[in-house]
Amino acid sequence: MGIHGGDIYRNHVILDFSVNVNPLGIPKGVKEGLYRAIGLCHRYPDMKAEKLKKAMGEMLALPEEYLLFGNGASELFLAAAHGIKAKKTVIPVPSFYGYEYAAKAAGSEIVYYEMKAEHNFCLTEDICSILAEDTDALFLANPNNPTGHLLEPETLKRLLQHCKNKGIYVFLDECFIEFTSQAFSMLPELEGFDNLVIVRAFTKIFSIPGVRLGYLICKNPFLLTRIASQLPEWNLSCFAQEAGCACTEQADFIKKTVNYIGKERGFLENGLQKKGFQTFPSAANFILLYSKEPLYEKLLAQGILIRDCSNFKGLGKGFYRIAVKSRKENEILLESL
Amino acid sequence: MGIHGGDIYRNHVILDFSVNVNPLGIPKGVKEGLYRAIGLCHRYPDMKAEKLKKAMGEMLALPEEYLLFGNGASELFLAAAHGIKAKKTVIPVPSFYGYEYAAKAAGSEIVYYEMKAEHNFCLTEDICSILAEDTDALFLANPNNPTGHLLEPETLKRLLQHCKNKGIYVFLDECFIEFTSQAFSMLPELEGFDNLVIVRAFTKIFSIPGVRLGYLICKNPFLLTRIASQLPEWNLSCFAQEAGCACTEQADFIKKTVNYIGKERGFLENGLQKKGFQTFPSAANFILLYSKEPLYEKLLAQGILIRDCSNFKGLGKGFYRIAVKSRKENEILLESL
Repeated sequence: MGIHGGDIYRNHVILDFSVNVNPLGIPKGVKEGLYRAIGLCHRYPDMKAEKLKKAMGEMLALPEEYLLFGNGASELFLAAAHGIKAKKTVIPVPSFYGYEYAAKAAGSEIVYYEMKAEHNFCLTEDICSILAEDTDALFLANPNNPTGHLLEPETLKRLLQHCKNKGIYVFLDECFIEFTSQAFSMLPELEGFDNLVIVRAFTKIFSIPGVRLGYLICKNPFLLTRIASQLPEWNLSCFAQEAGCACTEQADFIKKTVNYIGKERGFLENGLQKKGFQTFPSAANFILLYSKEPLYEKLLAQGILIRDCSNFKGLGKGFYRIAVKSRKENEILLESL
Repeated sequence: MGIHGGDIYRNHVILDFSVNVNPLGIPKGVKEGLYRAIGLCHRYPDMKAEKLKKAMGEMLALPEEYLLFGNGASELFLAAAHGIKAKKTVIPVPSFYGYEYAAKAAGSEIVYYEMKAEHNFCLTEDICSILAEDTDALFLANPNNPTGHLLEPETLKRLLQHCKNKGIYVFLDECFIEFTSQAFSMLPELEGFDNLVIVRAFTKIFSIPGVRLGYLICKNPFLLTRIASQLPEWNLSCFAQEAGCACTEQADFIKKTVNYIGKERGFLENGLQKKGFQTFPSAANFILLYSKEPLYEKLLAQGILIRDCSNFKGLGKGFYRIAVKSRKENEILLESL
């Protein structure tokens, strides 16, 4: 078991429930973009990603200058931590390991804020007590991974304001926001918060983790320049740029996904609860559950990989994350449990 | 005109002589690898790049543990500079801008050592006078870019020994070594120098700059761990990994390339000299020339892009770099001059 899910390379896996990508697969237009890229990759990719920037700016109805692209969101977290030369970083846990990885790479001290199972791992505003002037950055995911918990816009706005007052940058990971309602995104708040950096990826919603493409959005040109200076030159492959352009034309696909995931998540939650597992309310395309019986090895023996969450800070033995997949696959999982 | 060559995205370009990729194009097997990757990219790429590591280790006849892969050599330079927390970096100029970019990103002071046109931009051992104990790193390319100058193994070995004595890491860029004789590589010296990091890329020799794949080789596990901690997680796309594996089976293609480039470089040098341009001796797939008449705009008006080198540190107005391309293309260039 590694730090992340999805180690299909060193396990015999028939069904991978450990990785949270869209069960509807790669949209046709995006796949076509990838084929197109094969015909382009004998040339250097556009360093400025002009075409992609324009398409994304239009899709998000934001100025292109607010955008920065990365070889996956993971690259952007690292560049962000280096860009601000973070000395003290606050990370609520349990959450994605990548924030810790980035903060450590930049040599930052990390203060963990523990969210509790009894509150469904909800971030409460008492986190503000550790967000003082000496803090440089807060990493935060909405919806959170691996819990699936979704924060209310009003809570987030108050938190952003607190951080703004204290001079703290907020790196808000919205990599799973497309699976829920866009109404929960902080995009509309960008103008009011020059300490806000929203990070997103194409990885999960368009099912292209192998392509590597993430982006961040920020209105603060000083901050953007600092982060950009920490990104390798030519960091975006032709495949990322072509696929990314195609991704901007998938509004219908996203709508279809939200409906599909909503239905299937309900089906899976229901099934898990009926089998006596404790599930935590999720707004994303995965479910965190607690089981007294060990599940990981048992399922792996049947070729089913799930995410053992015992190595997440703030979790422990008995917690597992399961992706919401297609009805047929979800049924197989439930039967196998 | 940008910091790098190849801005085909903001110029009308029919023939691009500004970028130094193999004129023989992408090997068939490598292209097949890219097609294969389209069928794989709905999954996360292997974080450990196990298959690629094994294939490369066998090809280079080196232990796999010596290898680290990057999203292009540019990512590796950046990770290297951060990994050693370089405070003082020596860079001989003129050379590739990426070393300066990486050192600056890591906040390092940079000391430039100027190589002279009258010595054909040859690095001489008087560089040792500025390589003292307070230096953390030396970035060096062999053959050098944009000059094409190739250092003798004996010179390099003495330089490596000097740096070893002074506790200086040497990041030796061999991104163009495959275009010349492998006998000039420092690979055989790895065992004797734990301060040596060789950086290479698949970009130029296999004509896949749009894919992004570089690697470094080093025997020092401490240093490797430090550099690896500065690479984003999942930094290698499925495309990079599949293409990379296919690249390890291209020994014949490399041999063919060396012959082809040798012949065409001679043809181009000859033609340029006949037209009265001063050329500098090159062992790579490009030629640095000096011209009293401005060439860049004149050629661009004909749809031919070359590299204006006036913004290279250590060069100036009148220097241009021209890639060695196919006979037909080289003829067109000579006629257009």
